[in-house]
Amino acid sequence: MNINEYVIEKASIAKAAARKMAIIDTLTKNKSLIAMADALLQNTDVILKANEVDMENGRKKGLSPSLLDRLLLDTKRVEAMANGLKEVAALDDPIGEVIRMWKRPNNLKVGQIRVPLGVIGIIYEARPNVTVDAAALCIKSGNSVILRGGSEAINSNLAITKIISEAAESAGLPKGTINLIENTDREAVNVLMKLNEYIDVLIPRGGAGLINTVVKNATVPVIETGVGICHIYVDDSADLINAIDIIVNAKTQRPAVCNAMETLLVNKNIAKEFLPKLSKKLLSLNVELRGCPIVQSIIKDAKPATEQDWATEYLDLILSIKVVDSLDEALDHIYKYGTKHSEAILTNNYSNSQRFLNEVDAAAVYVNASTRFTDGGALGFGAEIGISTQKLHARGPMGLKELTSSKYIIYGEGQIRE
Amino acid sequence: MNINEYVIEKASIAKAAARKMAIIDTLTKNKSLIAMADALLQNTDVILKANEVDMENGRKKGLSPSLLDRLLLDTKRVEAMANGLKEVAALDDPIGEVIRMWKRPNNLKVGQIRVPLGVIGIIYEARPNVTVDAAALCIKSGNSVILRGGSEAINSNLAITKIISEAAESAGLPKGTINLIENTDREAVNVLMKLNEYIDVLIPRGGAGLINTVVKNATVPVIETGVGICHIYVDDSADLINAIDIIVNAKTQRPAVCNAMETLLVNKNIAKEFLPKLSKKLLSLNVELRGCPIVQSIIKDAKPATEQDWATEYLDLILSIKVVDSLDEALDHIYKYGTKHSEAILTNNYSNSQRFLNEVDAAAVYVNASTRFTDGGALGFGAEIGISTQKLHARGPMGLKELTSSKYIIYGEGQIRE
Repeated sequence: MNINEYVIEKASIAKAAARKMAIIDTLTKNKSLIAMADALLQNTDVILKANEVDMENGRKKGLSPSLLDRLLLDTKRVEAMANGLKEVAALDDPIGEVIRMWKRPNNLKVGQIRVPLGVIGIIYEARPNVTVDAAALCIKSGNSVILRGGSEAINSNLAITKIISEAAESAGLPKGTINLIENTDREAVNVLMKLNEYIDVLIPRGGAGLINTVVKNATVPVIETGVGICHIYVDDSADLINAIDIIVNAKTQRPAVCNAMETLLVNKNIAKEFLPKLSKKLLSLNVELRGCPIVQSIIKDAKPATEQDWATEYLDLILSIKVVDSLDEALDHIYKYGTKHSEAILTNNYSNSQRFLNEVDAAAVYVNASTRFTDGGALGFGAEIGISTQKLHARGPMGLKELTSSKYIIYGEGQIRE
Repeated sequence: MNINEYVIEKASIAKAAARKMAIIDTLTKNKSLIAMADALLQNTDVILKANEVDMENGRKKGLSPSLLDRLLLDTKRVEAMANGLKEVAALDDPIGEVIRMWKRPNNLKVGQIRVPLGVIGIIYEARPNVTVDAAALCIKSGNSVILRGGSEAINSNLAITKIISEAAESAGLPKGTINLIENTDREAVNVLMKLNEYIDVLIPRGGAGLINTVVKNATVPVIETGVGICHIYVDDSADLINAIDIIVNAKTQRPAVCNAMETLLVNKNIAKEFLPKLSKKLLSLNVELRGCPIVQSIIKDAKPATEQDWATEYLDLILSIKVVDSLDEALDHIYKYGTKHSEAILTNNYSNSQRFLNEVDAAAVYVNASTRFTDGGALGFGAEIGISTQKLHARGPMGLKELTSSKYIIYGEGQIRE
């Protein structure tokens, strides 16, 4: 069987399972998620042994320490995966919700009902916990899933999917609900991206390179996740003490994630008072500062920020800073360089707060809070499969509801169209 | 300026207009739609003169009578376009709706707000009224629009867009809200389909060939509209007199549209009683019948239905008929050959009605009514830009809400992430 046939076979198994999953009851889904959690815990040693093979291969290949860390599993991390499954089991089932229902003048009763998407393809990189998280969310939302993880984690993924698939099936889920593409050749992804007849949506999770490849090459609909060049604009009416806390949080609490701040915009009226205090704090936390000429004239340790800096998602302890004349200049800068992810204004001016909320086009727009809250857990969705930066279908953190579609059901009594 | 530069320039004008459109007030949008309607009426002679050029060229090119009919404009059709604009003006503005709002334990107030998609690209064929309909819906939903109609209608489209653009701009809409790609080379569409930086969504409207081309080649997200191989299943408990009315309506009231029925499935227990009565009626209405062997044994005028028939959207007065053993066989047939558009069961059996509603995966699923109700007007959405047969973003008739996205706005008071 060549790669093409192999991937199509997997996809057709997933499609057959999706038809059964669409009408499965909530209790069976929950029971299966709990069974999957228990199976992970009971087979921790099997998983860790497989993971050690991946780690060994990774070290031989010279993977970076941060990549090796993402790849690594230990008892705690396996427990965390199991707990994640139990948390998803505890969430409300989105399927079957009557979104709205109304009666037409001819007495037709029309309801819009939440249904699963069908088959969801997840293309991701080295983190084996994505295998479990993604499977859990897809199952709870009534979908089947095709997982395609990175080659670095293949042994871990094989062990994990075998364990959770068997547990899910024993607990009553259709065979083929969870599928791993075991072939880690790039060609397998190329086939997957074109299988419109089998796959309803593809969600790439990982770096910009992976996401761009999928967006550019897939004919299957894609939900784009990812890149966040997030800004905070400090208005001249902001509470400056509070502003330092928020900026430090947005930049340093977890710099490697997409909702961390990358560029700070400061109103010129407060720059001289504010920037020295702020820079002292940031430099003490080892944040490298890069600034426009005005910033450099105020902060002697700031390096020059180039055009490239404004367009860069550092994902690191680096911050670019620009002094702006006005809210309008801040809005223009964000319009030009923002990635429509998360943007914040710090202000006590009512009109400026409203303009920022209305005029900034992003998944999440904040007044007086850290951009770090843009995720499914922090906003209260319970879990998330990624953060959409596109406008179609889902925008911002995607929880269970964002893994669903809808259909209209119409109760008639013999109506015909005049 | 080459085609590439030309299309990018149009798209960048549309993008700049979208930024302004996103915050424009409802009154200005409504005033503009009314002004556009008035301008169409006042310039009817200009439009008809331009349309006559298209008609003349079409006749010379040997376009089919049905294509020429779709292309034709007359005073009545211009009035209908103007009335369409006024109807859209009267609809509720979807933008700014607070979809939901809640408070987090840390006191963050999170609201999900309806916002425009941004720039919508519409790729369509010969019907010049789409130019007006699409512009109206995009404007009311706060978007800018890039229109790319077929070459057959180019003179009509040029006249119409000039008239409505000028009227819209005089009434206060941003310059560049309505854009027509005047170049009718295929290459212009190829460029348009890849402009992810400028265009938020593409909606192809037309035949299967056009839609497939866009789905396969676009990197911009696409909403797929279209193909409907719609089924009606007559259960053995159905009211057979009523069933004839519904079937005749679904097949003959307007056979050329996507929600017309193409295949009839009849339970074996009633086939001998029902099919002769039904066929008499259908044959009197000039419907060509094609059937499985059992159908042929009952209806002597039925031609044999081939495998190809079950997979064909006739869009014509042709009906394929199959006798099935059970609801399960009907569900399997629909699963195999359906296009997830509109499917109906005629039954008086409660359990069968519920199974059909739950198990059929389609945009609209009916009990005891004609499939012809699947459109924005008939379901009560006021207007529609097409019928989505995909599951992502929008499913079924797309009205104003389906031309929107959302964003989260977060009111903080200094919150940081722990």
